[in-house]
Amino acid sequence: MSDDSMINPELVIDHKFPETTYTYNERDVAVYALGIGACSTDALDDKELKYVYHEDGQQSIQVLPTFAAIFSIGLINNLEQLPGFMFDPRLLLHGQQYIEICKPLPSNCSMRNKASIVGLHDKGKAAILEFEVLSYEKETGELLSMNRTTVYLRGAGGFSKSSPPYSFSKYPKDQTASKTPKTPPFVVHEERIQPSQGRNA
Amino acid sequence: MSDDSMINPELVIDHKFPETTYTYNERDVAVYALGIGACSTDALDDKELKYVYHEDGQQSIQVLPTFAAIFSIGLINNLEQLPGFMFDPRLLLHGQQYIEICKPLPSNCSMRNKASIVGLHDKGKAAILEFEVLSYEKETGELLSMNRTTVYLRGAGGFSKSSPPYSFSKYPKDQTASKTPKTPPFVVHEERIQPSQGRNA
Repeated sequence: MSDDSMINPELVIDHKFPETTYTYNERDVAVYALGIGACSTDALDDKELKYVYHEDGQQSIQVLPTFAAIFSIGLINNLEQLPGFMFDPRLLLHGQQYIEICKPLPSNCSMRNKASIVGLHDKGKAAILEFEVLSYEKETGELLSMNRTTVYLRGAGGFSKSSPPYSFSKYPKDQTASKTPKTPPFVVHEERIQPSQGRNA
Repeated sequence: MSDDSMINPELVIDHKFPETTYTYNERDVAVYALGIGACSTDALDDKELKYVYHEDGQQSIQVLPTFAAIFSIGLINNLEQLPGFMFDPRLLLHGQQYIEICKPLPSNCSMRNKASIVGLHDKGKAAILEFEVLSYEKETGELLSMNRTTVYLRGAGGFSKSSPPYSFSKYPKDQTASKTPKTPPFVVHEERIQPSQGRNA
């Protein structure tokens, strides 16, 4: 555990986040799609135009499913306010992003986000924190999506008071995207990101 | 003059456009810069990041001067409402865009736009219409920019009642960007647009 890190696991897992709201519109949706490369190799790509443009009388811009990841992104920046949770944000790595989409995402939406801590693990040198964000459409009250975000905090482990090391998990063990199936993939798709797209060095 | 075109020059040049307002913010400025290719070959380009990002404590996103062209763009779509001015919008070509920048464009701004017709020419088969948009910062009342837009309307010429063909111009003859100087250029810069950028076929 580095000097800047100190984790009180009971305080962390008991924390209740305040509900938050988030609103997006078609322009946000289109800018997101452009940002991750829609139409980047061909401005008139007929498979991708629907994500950025109202083509041929299309009523609304189609939302890419990964747009749902945005609904949880604000929380990462607020982890420093979590009681009992001191860590060095420069050592944070985004580990896993598990997404369930419950209905097609509308092109314009106001939502309520309910966040909770669903996992905390002492990995020795590092700590792993998992949180879930449930996003409900404000108008209908319907669940839109669930994000489960895993952050890997280097230098923040070693907070267990006894062995085995502290490990808390609040969701079904078989509900994870990290299991590798033994069967060969049904489809293989290769994609090259553009030089304009942000990426890790 | 095609069947869909009919121009009454006196009505057109006497038209008074209502004043309009336009507000933009930093996000619009950054999206514009990304749209015309800032950081498109290198997401971390240190000469271009200032147009899309607050780098190293930069207070506000820097506005590319050509962003000013946007202040006049709405008018092109409203030319069909101009009294005495019937033309086929499918045959419209954007001819020239002359811009004067009076002060550095703020990264957030509300402005008042005053538009007027400053030129109309019968070119036989085609007509040329020129309009100016003066953009004033709402807060200070100061002039930010002047756009003079030339649209070339195929099939809309031949409206002159006598010869020589009708030609009206309201700005100084020497104030034009179309004169080619006889001296060699001071600087030559070559740039390649990205496949993601819209372009004419």
